[in-house]
Parts: sequence; C-alpha cells; structure tokens
Amino acid sequence: MDEFELVAQYFSQGRVQAGVRTGIGDDGAVLEGVPGQDLVVVTDTLVSGVHFATEHSAGDIGHKALAVNLSDIAAMGASAGWALLNLTLPRADTVWLENFSAALLELADRFGVALIGGDTTRGPLSISVTVGGWVPSGQALTRQGASTGEDIYISGTLGEAAAALALGLDCQQQLTLLEGELLHRLARPEPRVDLGIVLRTLATAAIDISDGLLADLGHVLAASGQLGASITAEALPLSPAACKLLGKEAALSHALAGGDDFELCFTVPPERRLAVATLARSSGLTLTCIGTVTPGGGVIVSQGGAPHVAVESGYRHHWQADG
Amino acid sequence: MDEFELVAQYFSQGRVQAGVRTGIGDDGAVLEGVPGQDLVVVTDTLVSGVHFATEHSAGDIGHKALAVNLSDIAAMGASAGWALLNLTLPRADTVWLENFSAALLELADRFGVALIGGDTTRGPLSISVTVGGWVPSGQALTRQGASTGEDIYISGTLGEAAAALALGLDCQQQLTLLEGELLHRLARPEPRVDLGIVLRTLATAAIDISDGLLADLGHVLAASGQLGASITAEALPLSPAACKLLGKEAALSHALAGGDDFELCFTVPPERRLAVATLARSSGLTLTCIGTVTPGGGVIVSQGGAPHVAVESGYRHHWQADG
Repeated sequence: MDEFELVAQYFSQGRVQAGVRTGIGDDGAVLEGVPGQDLVVVTDTLVSGVHFATEHSAGDIGHKALAVNLSDIAAMGASAGWALLNLTLPRADTVWLENFSAALLELADRFGVALIGGDTTRGPLSISVTVGGWVPSGQALTRQGASTGEDIYISGTLGEAAAALALGLDCQQQLTLLEGELLHRLARPEPRVDLGIVLRTLATAAIDISDGLLADLGHVLAASGQLGASITAEALPLSPAACKLLGKEAALSHALAGGDDFELCFTVPPERRLAVATLARSSGLTLTCIGTVTPGGGVIVSQGGAPHVAVESGYRHHWQADG
Repeated sequence: MDEFELVAQYFSQGRVQAGVRTGIGDDGAVLEGVPGQDLVVVTDTLVSGVHFATEHSAGDIGHKALAVNLSDIAAMGASAGWALLNLTLPRADTVWLENFSAALLELADRFGVALIGGDTTRGPLSISVTVGGWVPSGQALTRQGASTGEDIYISGTLGEAAAALALGLDCQQQLTLLEGELLHRLARPEPRVDLGIVLRTLATAAIDISDGLLADLGHVLAASGQLGASITAEALPLSPAACKLLGKEAALSHALAGGDDFELCFTVPPERRLAVATLARSSGLTLTCIGTVTPGGGVIVSQGGAPHVAVESGYRHHWQADG
C-alpha cells in the first residue's frame, strides 16, 4: 500500500466540509477566511514510547492525538474548524490504521473538524496533529489576562489520568468500574471546547491542564505578570474514584501535580460569580473555585488553614545538553 | 535544558511579527484574519534515516524542513505567513540546534514567515513543519485546472537533486564546483514563492516537483480529469552540471524521474505565451515550455520524434500491509 492509497482508504471523511475549498490531495488545503474572526492554530506531537506505550490501543492513540489539540483550542476560547495529521508509521498495519483513523475521525466529526490534509511517512511511530479554529477578532483567551483578586476555577475533576498511570492501568487488564473510569480519563480525554467558547466573555485567562495544575496555573500567573495564587486544598475537585482506590492524600497529590486531565483552569473577576454558577448549571459541567490570584509569592496551597508542602510541579521534556 | 528553555533559546525570532496577535508560548497562536483572503495550509514531515541521513548538516535539515513547505505554498499560489515547528529530538545537542534553528529562521525571515509555535518532544529525530499563507479568495492554484491543448511549463532546471544523490555527494567531501552546485540544489532548495504568486493570474494548474516530473505532472493530469501529456525530451531544462558529470542520458532520466527539485510545473493556455515570456524576463527565472496537455493516454515523452522508453515515475512511501 502506498501513501496515497493509505490516505484515501483510512482518512477520507467522505463528505463535503463547510468552508473547505480544497481538502486532502493537493499541495495544500484551502479554507475560506471567516470575516471578523482571528485564526487560532495549535499543534502537538505524540511519540511512541514517550507519550504512549506501543501496547496502547490504536483507537485511544487516534482519539488522544486529536483531543489534546482540541483541548488547546478550548483553552484559547476558539471554535475548532480543521485538522492536519502528520503520521509516521513503521509499517501499514491495517487493523491498527482502521482503529486509529476511526477514533480520530469520530472525534473530528463530533467537534465539526474537517481533516483537510497532512503527511504520511515511513519511520518510528509518531503523530503530529495541527488544529485550526476561529475566534471573534481580538477575543482569544490567552494565559495573560489574570489579575490579583480574581477567582481561579477548574472544570470537572482533577488527577484521574495521573491516578490511572499510578495504578498502572491499561486496556489489557480486567478492570473494576472505578478503574475503568480512571483509565477512560487517561485514554479518551474529553476536550472542553464548548466551555472555552463561553469563557471568552467570562474569563480573563485560561489554560488546559496538560502538565498538571501547579505547572499550568504557574504558566498563567507568570504570563499575567509574575502573579501568585492561594489555593485551598479542600476546594480541589478531587476524583472520587482516585480517592477510593488510592486514598485522599494521593488523590490530592495527583490533582495538584498530575498531568493529562485536559480540564480548563481559568480566572474570573469575583463580580462574575453568579454568571459562572449559571454557566455550570446550563452546561452540566462542574466548575469549582479553588482559590484566588495574589500579587505574587508563587502558588501557596493551604490545607486545614496551613500551607501544604510543595509537590513536584508537572511534566516537561528534559534533554541532557551536549555538543 | 527543558523544552521551554530550548524554544526560548533557539527559536525566538526576537521581533514583533505583523498580523500575529499571540505567538510562541501560549496554548495556541492567534493570527489576524485577512479580509478577502483564503487560508492555505501545508505540512510535511522529514524523518531521520528516511528523508535525510544522520550525517546531514543540521543547517541543511533546518533549511529543507521549511523549504519543502514553502514550495507547497508556492504551488498553491499563496503568500507565506506563518509556520509551526514540531521537533522531536533524541537529545539537546546545542551545536546541532544552533545550526538547525539559524538556517530555518534565516529562510523564514527571507520569506516573511513568522514562527508562531510548535511542539518540542523527546524521541527519534523527526521534524514536521506546517506553513500557513493567504491567497485572494477563490484564487488558489490547485492541480485541477489544466485543459487539453495547454502548454506545460517548468521553472528552472530539473534533475539536479537526483544527480547529487546518484553521485553520492555529501558535505563531508571535497567537492568540485559542479558537484557543489548539484549538492546545493539537494541540500538547500529554493522555494518559488514569488513565482507562484504571479502564476495565480497566468496558470490554470500548478504543482511543485517533489516526487519527480513524471509523477507530479501525472498528479496534475489525473486531478484535471484523466488528461494526458506530450513531452519533448529535447525541450526539458536539463542540468548543465548533471550533463557534464553524468552524461546527457542520465541527466534526462533524472530530469524526468528525479524528485526533490522543488521547481514548479504549471499549465498555461497558449494565448498567454507572451505573458509567460514577459514574466520570465522580469523574474530572472528560466521558464521552459516542455510540452502540451493532451486528452488522455498518459504522459508520452518523445525524443528525436519517437516515443521515449518509460522511466520509473517518482517516489512514494510504500509499506508492506499486514494485520
């Protein structure tokens, strides 16, 4: 099978996509501009053996490769429009490709994303996805708008993906219902795109939790002018499943430092509390105020009124510098 | 060195870029929409050991990773605007990174491209670059517009990159001037972006020569409705260096089937011949008419008035299907 056949067989969505003038199959894709809108682009690479194990299910990998990008789109307050897939494969495993493409396209269809192009090459398994979207001109949510005194919110629950990793869960095992819940969060994260769109008019800054709450909140505070935060441990939306399976202390630690939750963390002026409560009710999402932005001094997590011991703050790729 | 430090140190262009509201360092990049313009996006992956050897110079790899994408932008008739870089590295080799980023950013600056984001991960060396650009609404050049009776043109000369590969040239060797010319074409291709922009109003279809003339012209003919072409071998703009070093027959074979030239192949109605000649003079580029679009029957290459024996038609990634 050559690269053209592979793309035609597995990655055609089989329908005309709104706004796409030229899709897969030319030197590039052409999209109609949207008057009055800014373009938002995000991209993420997943490498076999680093971001997922070779034994991970192809469906989970396909879902996650797109979901992590949609999560970035959500954090920018944008609507998702299109995606590019750069897929590097050691061989054309038809079962793997069927499951990978089905899960990726299912998620794409659910979020109205047109797969408009990409590149398919031979090599060690690696997936880069790029997603583009649109946001009303000047209204993108960034990490930069937080101010002292604002409330800090989290969507959903935290620490479930990290708990699944800590428990060593994978889809080959017989899992209990609670374990299944945790693994599902790690394997099939749900991007909060609809929430991000509504937050454009409510939040002053936003980020998605990919490296862990402390690390990602730290990015917002740094970008907003070296601000700090006061977080109340008791307020954190811990995972009930993680609390039951690992205990409350471990669940708290995963909620603070665990990555891969892909919930949104955002800041809101206190006078908009009622609006956030209304949004939580209408969206069906739990939106929890976990603390306040402070003028500086880093992130202080208090438990029982006393500062909590610092925990390690998120995942970064490290290289040994040489040469 | 972690991923944030690496990006800050090597990939900051150090200046405000027009149209970029949010660049590197947020969840996504934000670009102002351009009224009346369509968005064109292209992407290509280069994998170590497949698209380049590990001993290739980092500067050449950085240049080529962006150049192949700019060549696709040229083939679409678009102006280049921005780029995303997904860089997977086994380790942070500072000399490699300095040379890679310097060459990539030099080319980006020369074409007015803002590096607005990307992803840096650990793993086997691989580079995906995505480039976005703009084209007046509905005016993108695609592979689809060719018609029977139109002239087929090529910019520049063909077969030089393939000749460099056939001669086994690399930058570790002592090279003659002619060998250096050939290797430069392979290592540092020059994207024809300015030509593509002018061709919007002249050409009916265009493609860049990345897989080889026969393969890429074949894509245009197929996309334009299963058309054919009659090519005159004597008209092909052979490489003088390849003719001298490999002989005329080998140079012809590389011109027909060799990839990686990144010249543009385009079709033009015969009544625009004067306009093409004027463009060639004003741009300083050689633009050569090599044949005519025919109603079908594949691509026939004639030499001395007789059909030339078919040669292999370009490079595709092949996988053994299994599973």
